[in-house]
Amino acid sequence: MRGSFVVVIAAAAGLAGVAAGQLEQPDAQEPPEATVDLTGDRLVDLSHAFNRRTIYWPTAQQFRLTEVADGETEGGWHYAANNFRAAEHGGTHLDAPIHFARNGDTADEIPLRKLAGPAVNVDVRAKADADRDYLVTVADLEAFEAEHGRIATNTVVLLRTGWARHWPDARRYMGTADRGADAVPNLHFPGLSEQAARWLVEQRRVKAVGIDTASIDRGQSTAFEAHRVLAAAQVPVFENVANLDRLPAEGFHVIALPMKIEGGSGGPLRALAFVGD
Amino acid sequence: MRGSFVVVIAAAAGLAGVAAGQLEQPDAQEPPEATVDLTGDRLVDLSHAFNRRTIYWPTAQQFRLTEVADGETEGGWHYAANNFRAAEHGGTHLDAPIHFARNGDTADEIPLRKLAGPAVNVDVRAKADADRDYLVTVADLEAFEAEHGRIATNTVVLLRTGWARHWPDARRYMGTADRGADAVPNLHFPGLSEQAARWLVEQRRVKAVGIDTASIDRGQSTAFEAHRVLAAAQVPVFENVANLDRLPAEGFHVIALPMKIEGGSGGPLRALAFVGD
Repeated sequence: MRGSFVVVIAAAAGLAGVAAGQLEQPDAQEPPEATVDLTGDRLVDLSHAFNRRTIYWPTAQQFRLTEVADGETEGGWHYAANNFRAAEHGGTHLDAPIHFARNGDTADEIPLRKLAGPAVNVDVRAKADADRDYLVTVADLEAFEAEHGRIATNTVVLLRTGWARHWPDARRYMGTADRGADAVPNLHFPGLSEQAARWLVEQRRVKAVGIDTASIDRGQSTAFEAHRVLAAAQVPVFENVANLDRLPAEGFHVIALPMKIEGGSGGPLRALAFVGD
Repeated sequence: MRGSFVVVIAAAAGLAGVAAGQLEQPDAQEPPEATVDLTGDRLVDLSHAFNRRTIYWPTAQQFRLTEVADGETEGGWHYAANNFRAAEHGGTHLDAPIHFARNGDTADEIPLRKLAGPAVNVDVRAKADADRDYLVTVADLEAFEAEHGRIATNTVVLLRTGWARHWPDARRYMGTADRGADAVPNLHFPGLSEQAARWLVEQRRVKAVGIDTASIDRGQSTAFEAHRVLAAAQVPVFENVANLDRLPAEGFHVIALPMKIEGGSGGPLRALAFVGD
């Protein structure tokens, strides 16, 4: 549906060969105020760095950087370059809808408009600290709204469990530092309940959902209900988000740009928040 | 110098353990108008997708996506995931200053403020079409200013050679589709002259420089003068930029977010332009 729309716009503008995602017109359904001051706003980096300690799922290939060059060349100047490899789903990363929905958008197909917008930061630290398997509920989201106002259509919703303070200690962050399939039953960290995922999609029509844990479903999940609900609704998910403790509860904006992997089910995500006065 | 500044700010705000790049205060030297309307502006994706045809330097490891899963699970839901690998410098990517300057910023160290700001799109297609080894001159930049006004301090300067129309045909885009060290002398594509690089750094104090070719130095370069001038000045470079033909000459903004590779000399870059009315 979106693809067709983009093609129509491109044809009208006389631009041949425009693929989805290259050019997007303003969305009339957005809330009215979503301006970012690139020079005056405070910037917060919401991404962890990729390095040897970057946390991946116990069964996933970890990040590795391999030096190709680092030093002075024959010409007398410095030159450094590397190769890298990783699984798509580790570190601060995107889950594209296709990760859990057969017809979902791939990483390169996600409309840019879903990756930039007004955001909220829902603090559930007290519940998560009391129960490392905590699932964020609809009541938690309603309590947030009671204090901060209704979550507008097309908001990026960030869930702050406080888990980023454990990064990169895999034992505390994941529940286990062991790797391999045998470690998966020992994963413990909070996530989003299926009901709350459904509420965000159906009742609030959010743009995207992010969390400061390794997965939008909790570590003890076996059926990945929140992933499936969000993917089916073409809602991108941001995982292992950093620095939510630097953000207010509301009144800020997020721009989260994934590596443009054609056909990708996700990938490295660099996300920023812009915080005004 | 910047690192120290960030630490001072962090200490003043009572935020312990804030590393450079996580939190950045507004820059007083910015030009006054740099607001982006996330809902009303037209968005243009400035990144090519990563796939099998993504163009890399003849000597560099190419992008490869390896399927890990794609299909229905035992639980009855769809699941897709992949691994990927590549050289840092291919596709639409960042050159971090350390790529060509021993003490330059690594990919994760670049201040976020250098990656977001007002931008200009300097059209040198006519010159590049007449000479595929063309080097953009100071006179070209002065001619741009004569028509569009002075390039303000802290602008992101994009150079439009028109080469993106050849993507992903390596023979036309690079001058040769051959790979390996023997192919390097046969590279032909336009770039930025050393003098113009120096002028952008010293006379206009630009934030970053982008180009729609494989390198900010032309294909025939052997000493990489533009790289070295920009790197020495801590100016990030964006290469293989896409869709400059969708942008006006001025009056738009760019946000270009690299994969946060710790110690990286560059890496995949997802860049967007926001074009107002």
